[in-house]
Amino acid sequence: MSNVLNADAKGVFVIAVTPFTESGELDLASTDRMVDFYLESRATGLTILGILGEATKLTAEESRTFVKRVLARVAGRVPVIVGASAAGFAPMRELSTSVMDLGASGVMVAPAPTLRTDDQIVAYFDMVNTTLGADCPWVLQDHPVSTGVQMSTSVVLRVLKNSPACVMLKHEDSPGLAKLSALRAASDKGDLKRVSILTGNGGGLFLPEELTRGADGAMTGFAYPEMMVDVCHAHASGDIEKAHDIFDAYLPLARYEQQSNIGLAVRKYLMAQRGVIASAALRKPGPKLSEADIADIDRLVRRQTRRLQEIQ
Amino acid sequence: MSNVLNADAKGVFVIAVTPFTESGELDLASTDRMVDFYLESRATGLTILGILGEATKLTAEESRTFVKRVLARVAGRVPVIVGASAAGFAPMRELSTSVMDLGASGVMVAPAPTLRTDDQIVAYFDMVNTTLGADCPWVLQDHPVSTGVQMSTSVVLRVLKNSPACVMLKHEDSPGLAKLSALRAASDKGDLKRVSILTGNGGGLFLPEELTRGADGAMTGFAYPEMMVDVCHAHASGDIEKAHDIFDAYLPLARYEQQSNIGLAVRKYLMAQRGVIASAALRKPGPKLSEADIADIDRLVRRQTRRLQEIQ
Amino acid sequence: MSNVLNADAKGVFVIAVTPFTESGELDLASTDRMVDFYLESRATGLTILGILGEATKLTAEESRTFVKRVLARVAGRVPVIVGASAAGFAPMRELSTSVMDLGASGVMVAPAPTLRTDDQIVAYFDMVNTTLGADCPWVLQDHPVSTGVQMSTSVVLRVLKNSPACVMLKHEDSPGLAKLSALRAASDKGDLKRVSILTGNGGGLFLPEELTRGADGAMTGFAYPEMMVDVCHAHASGDIEKAHDIFDAYLPLARYEQQSNIGLAVRKYLMAQRGVIASAALRKPGPKLSEADIADIDRLVRRQTRRLQEIQ
Amino acid sequence: MSNVLNADAKGVFVIAVTPFTESGELDLASTDRMVDFYLESRATGLTILGILGEATKLTAEESRTFVKRVLARVAGRVPVIVGASAAGFAPMRELSTSVMDLGASGVMVAPAPTLRTDDQIVAYFDMVNTTLGADCPWVLQDHPVSTGVQMSTSVVLRVLKNSPACVMLKHEDSPGLAKLSALRAASDKGDLKRVSILTGNGGGLFLPEELTRGADGAMTGFAYPEMMVDVCHAHASGDIEKAHDIFDAYLPLARYEQQSNIGLAVRKYLMAQRGVIASAALRKPGPKLSEADIADIDRLVRRQTRRLQEIQ
Repeated sequence: MSNVLNADAKGVFVIAVTPFTESGELDLASTDRMVDFYLESRATGLTILGILGEATKLTAEESRTFVKRVLARVAGRVPVIVGASAAGFAPMRELSTSVMDLGASGVMVAPAPTLRTDDQIVAYFDMVNTTLGADCPWVLQDHPVSTGVQMSTSVVLRVLKNSPACVMLKHEDSPGLAKLSALRAASDKGDLKRVSILTGNGGGLFLPEELTRGADGAMTGFAYPEMMVDVCHAHASGDIEKAHDIFDAYLPLARYEQQSNIGLAVRKYLMAQRGVIASAALRKPGPKLSEADIADIDRLVRRQTRRLQEIQ
Repeated sequence: MSNVLNADAKGVFVIAVTPFTESGELDLASTDRMVDFYLESRATGLTILGILGEATKLTAEESRTFVKRVLARVAGRVPVIVGASAAGFAPMRELSTSVMDLGASGVMVAPAPTLRTDDQIVAYFDMVNTTLGADCPWVLQDHPVSTGVQMSTSVVLRVLKNSPACVMLKHEDSPGLAKLSALRAASDKGDLKRVSILTGNGGGLFLPEELTRGADGAMTGFAYPEMMVDVCHAHASGDIEKAHDIFDAYLPLARYEQQSNIGLAVRKYLMAQRGVIASAALRKPGPKLSEADIADIDRLVRRQTRRLQEIQ
Repeated sequence: MSNVLNADAKGVFVIAVTPFTESGELDLASTDRMVDFYLESRATGLTILGILGEATKLTAEESRTFVKRVLARVAGRVPVIVGASAAGFAPMRELSTSVMDLGASGVMVAPAPTLRTDDQIVAYFDMVNTTLGADCPWVLQDHPVSTGVQMSTSVVLRVLKNSPACVMLKHEDSPGLAKLSALRAASDKGDLKRVSILTGNGGGLFLPEELTRGADGAMTGFAYPEMMVDVCHAHASGDIEKAHDIFDAYLPLARYEQQSNIGLAVRKYLMAQRGVIASAALRKPGPKLSEADIADIDRLVRRQTRRLQEIQ
Repeated sequence: MSNVLNADAKGVFVIAVTPFTESGELDLASTDRMVDFYLESRATGLTILGILGEATKLTAEESRTFVKRVLARVAGRVPVIVGASAAGFAPMRELSTSVMDLGASGVMVAPAPTLRTDDQIVAYFDMVNTTLGADCPWVLQDHPVSTGVQMSTSVVLRVLKNSPACVMLKHEDSPGLAKLSALRAASDKGDLKRVSILTGNGGGLFLPEELTRGADGAMTGFAYPEMMVDVCHAHASGDIEKAHDIFDAYLPLARYEQQSNIGLAVRKYLMAQRGVIASAALRKPGPKLSEADIADIDRLVRRQTRRLQEIQ
């Protein structure tokens, strides 16, 4: 195992949550347990301080503390990627320099929400390359739902061509299967250098189909990361039906966890139920689950457990 | 059975597609078969000329022809609702008057995409009420993903309070369960007159949970409307687990069909496969399924068929 | 004089208002007077049924009546362009066929608000060309403020290259001077066929500078169209300072009239004051001027009159 | 004079630029000269690190250096407000605590771009109040063009009612005169506590009219801040026509400087020409003026100088 992030990356990079205590403090003991849990679930990488890591609710000092703690616990066993989308290039440089100095393997950058035309997007990532420098491996995040920026296949190709240090695409466009096929076709034709493509479409809600289209794995969060790992393994071993069987068993809950807004609260509730983190609390401002939500989730968990027994 | 649309509406109002021939002409024979199919599937209503009915690709004359044909075939057995969102109030009045004269049971209206503040939304629907008149039952469509307009619970309550002829809410906000609970609570407390609430969240991807929160049924499209009907029946009979069993069996395919953009092409492909419509063609401009898409769909159908046998 | 619309068009195409009576009926007598007024002001063309012509508030029948009346009064002396942006290609075809049959010289089309990527925009206008046919001269409207669609210079070039029947660009991007220079440079280099470029940036608020960059004139509304005509004439005759003198005299009022939302109410108020139209009424829903607004306008008119006397 | 920021603030708070050297370093000598220039122009306050202060291009350390330098040079003579809009509440608290500790008089906060409904906006500013604490005077920035958030008059009233430490509204909605009248009417009726209302609508392009509606002055940038000061003085002394005369003389250039995107480059060019800052450079990424732009500006400056002589 290694913590090098390069274009050969495969498997499941879990988007980690940031654990807080009930009173809203960073919970470092839970952070350790969470890292252990993800690695025991056979994650091949971690991504921290993304949108679903509540990054914007942390002070700069807290961010550093959290990154250090995760890196110390991971201890070089898998690559750790840190979200570095920022309101400007100066804070992006500060953040990326800081986390790379602490030992991160790379950073992840999405287009700024103000970008509209193809040329603007390409020019933006030229500045990103200048900002990050040649030695910082980075991940291009294509997530129109959160950024409002639609990158066509041809723009993704232009950005990747201009970005020697970009080694991975986090593919979250939706619908995204055709784009995934087109990118892989370009790569096979030699129009595009090899990059790792990990998918996060709806939190993995199209994972079996994405693997069939050539994705190298998933980068997303889900309270049951073993689902994604098992689906990837079954698929890689050629047992596509088994990959679907596993996926389908988790789908009703995954669907519920992937709701925008309250999804993260669902995920933390489940992780707390599983004993991974001590508290399900989100830092304010954040949604709270209602009793009706919890009843929904508990039912879905019971049904999932039963269904998993059936298919084994 | 009756074609009256009022606040007691329940069950499944299917969002109908508009069938075309391979060469792009309105296909009226398929239209008849489609109506028969929906009614045999025990739909309690139909909604036509919505976004997924390719309404904007029809000329005014074609729209009239299609509405007439559907109404003739339905022959008053269930209510038929016609989409009447329009760029202005004059075309909205023309369209709604025309379809009500032809025998429609009501129209459906979404907020104009330019609306931003609560007051603007409330004022807009005051104009809608003036435009439609007191005698035209109408459906409020709350679908932020397509309109960009976010209506808070309090705004929906204000609009409904001001709108005596509004008898139904098409609830498609996402995440929407908390809003649904809040609206039902308001209705139970008497803050809100009784309206029928049918849900369309992600094409019914939260149907069992929505029924638990008090929804009266679904208004959405899916190539297997019997799923929605059976889920509603099981739920109404108190067998919640059975409702989930049925739902889960269809979920992998439903998820695939609910992708934005290519979803309608998936639906029409499936309806053509089932013999409901003669051609899967969308009128231009519209997406086309690739071979890889069709392979995905065919696999999901096979798996769905198998799973349905298992649970019976 | 001729009513042919081609790439040699120059001067001022006035965006016409649609006159209503106090009670909201189409005012055809005022329509005649308005046409006379615009032509007496030496407009070289008219554009009707655009956003500021309250097009979406008219029924199809009213639109036809209004178009017919304008065309009859113009009687072929100048080209008349009709706005044809529509929610779909079928209504676009219906509208454009109808107005061309009535004798319009061409139609104007803006990109649909849903378009995001360069390729989407180019594909959209390929469909527009198919929809309008080879024989319908059309104007490409580039107005990001109202459409939300940002077309880069390279996209405008691609669209124009694909569109033999597109003879004019209505340039309303803002800031737009650099784009105007780039388009003219492309045209001078032969990368772009000659098209007429008329500007509408902020209702002509950059007219002298735009003429210096190579614009052929203006297409916009202003209650004093003689300003735009006089600025164009002075500029064309080489007296740039005089062009600015005239422009500056009108600028304080023009700025006030170009406010979004209430701007059209200001324009109609001024046109009613000038005796061009009988009533300043907008059809509902539309803003109303307050007493404070009217006091502002009256002051600006008095000051403008005084200043015009000074510079003569 | 005093540096206290409270609801009695009047006059012109200049939005300061951030001076850089040609090579992109913070230029502290120019910073001193700029502060002197603004105070000699009789600014009654300064606002720094806003959007037009290129705040997102500065590192945290550079921001602190710049804030310190400005505060040292101002030396308590006028209030200094620092922009504190941030991607999250944790960085907002860090930034506001840091600048208040350095001696700033208050901070300015705009609604987050993701907010849509009235209730969301009100809830957001409840969190802002919690974040900033009771002792930090703050300015509510209402600028829909940059945030995409439309705050109705009733929402502004709700936010102000909930925010004891909010002492000022930066009013930049457009069209905004009716809103300004409504807010002043609410304040006169006692529905709204007294807050200072400074306007920034289009960089002061409606200043005389805004003063007539009850604005207390302007908060915006313009390379000729003496214009805004002189307009305010003339208006306050009751000579409305003189206020307009001064305003009109500067309007052609002000209009040019207020173009979005290149406007800041125009402002810095003019300030460099006037000897206020050593270099007109923006930090990357930023637009550059073309020769044609500079020719436009130089002409407008010559004309402005001439016109100012005429009206004296």
